[in-house]
Amino acid sequence: MKRQSERSLSGSDFIQKKTIKPSAFLNPVPLIMCSCGTMEKPGIITVAWCGTVNSEPPMVSVSVRKSRYSHGLISESGRFCVNLVSRDLVKAADLCGVRSGRDVDKFAETGLTKVPSPLYGIPMIGESPVNMECSVKQVLELGSHDMFIGQIDGVYVAEKLFDSKGAVDMNDAGLAAYSHGEYYALSGILGFYGYSVAGEKALKRRKR
Amino acid sequence: MKRQSERSLSGSDFIQKKTIKPSAFLNPVPLIMCSCGTMEKPGIITVAWCGTVNSEPPMVSVSVRKSRYSHGLISESGRFCVNLVSRDLVKAADLCGVRSGRDVDKFAETGLTKVPSPLYGIPMIGESPVNMECSVKQVLELGSHDMFIGQIDGVYVAEKLFDSKGAVDMNDAGLAAYSHGEYYALSGILGFYGYSVAGEKALKRRKR
Repeated sequence: MKRQSERSLSGSDFIQKKTIKPSAFLNPVPLIMCSCGTMEKPGIITVAWCGTVNSEPPMVSVSVRKSRYSHGLISESGRFCVNLVSRDLVKAADLCGVRSGRDVDKFAETGLTKVPSPLYGIPMIGESPVNMECSVKQVLELGSHDMFIGQIDGVYVAEKLFDSKGAVDMNDAGLAAYSHGEYYALSGILGFYGYSVAGEKALKRRKR
Repeated sequence: MKRQSERSLSGSDFIQKKTIKPSAFLNPVPLIMCSCGTMEKPGIITVAWCGTVNSEPPMVSVSVRKSRYSHGLISESGRFCVNLVSRDLVKAADLCGVRSGRDVDKFAETGLTKVPSPLYGIPMIGESPVNMECSVKQVLELGSHDMFIGQIDGVYVAEKLFDSKGAVDMNDAGLAAYSHGEYYALSGILGFYGYSVAGEKALKRRKR
């Protein structure tokens, strides 16, 4: 696989622009496996057209083409589960993005562990570092995709991600992102929210 | 700044879960600077609660609290620009996330170059590797945030990101992502869309 670019470009290199045909060019975007259906008839669809859309109450959006098998499953039950993708789940996620659940049981195909969600009993992916159970609040038909807006009703985080103080360290999850057709690892923390205005004390505390 | 974790956890380590209070736990999420207002009275707000929501026509969502200065600017004009954030823009992005445009002109404060967008003449950030001009199609009041759904009407990509065949190599942009309160670089391509089912030919072609 191609390595990260060693070209070192910066802001001034980017000022000269070329106009291209309008397309979905937001990068990077999240990479999740969205599990749905029932324990007996489960589905998994990989979604990069998703995002956090609200904080209180916490909500996510997940956009799915009407033609997809999972679209029917989510529409029927009004529920889905967002499963985060760490580095070693990327191949399974890719498979769940290109194959259809009409043809294969993706849990069987990938070997992922099907766990019933605590609130709604829908399938969650055991190997994901974080699972979020969601209930659909609105569906917007936007054209190629329907956007399901889900309220996050339950959040389940791997025990191994809690540090000694009980805080969650997501850095240990080794999460992946999607950018312009490629899957990337996250690496190298560049800063934390507020670091540009933080005092020396806060900066020191963070430099563990 | 803390380095990337060297703990090597994998799927089987994540199966044991702990229930936490429902919160916006989707990670990583995009990191963008959303510019808005006019060339005379510009605003920039950093947004991680954003995502691609539709492919045809291309659309993004951007969620902003009503209390934010930029919320008024976007509501008034019905237009905004999504500016992608590369590594060396992260500090400016952090500043635009914590400061209010009521108090400071963020273009002046950060030294970013204010460029009028070709279609609507709204401010874009010159140093961003990609700019997207959007027009608001819907606004959803979800609670803490209003979600602006914008259609992408214009896309401008840095000339330096085009390879010799005219394709865009986003790897060279050095984009950043946001995860659980921290900014990360992307690094190490793990695969490309479809690689789990690709034949040997396609895999070889990608291994440049």
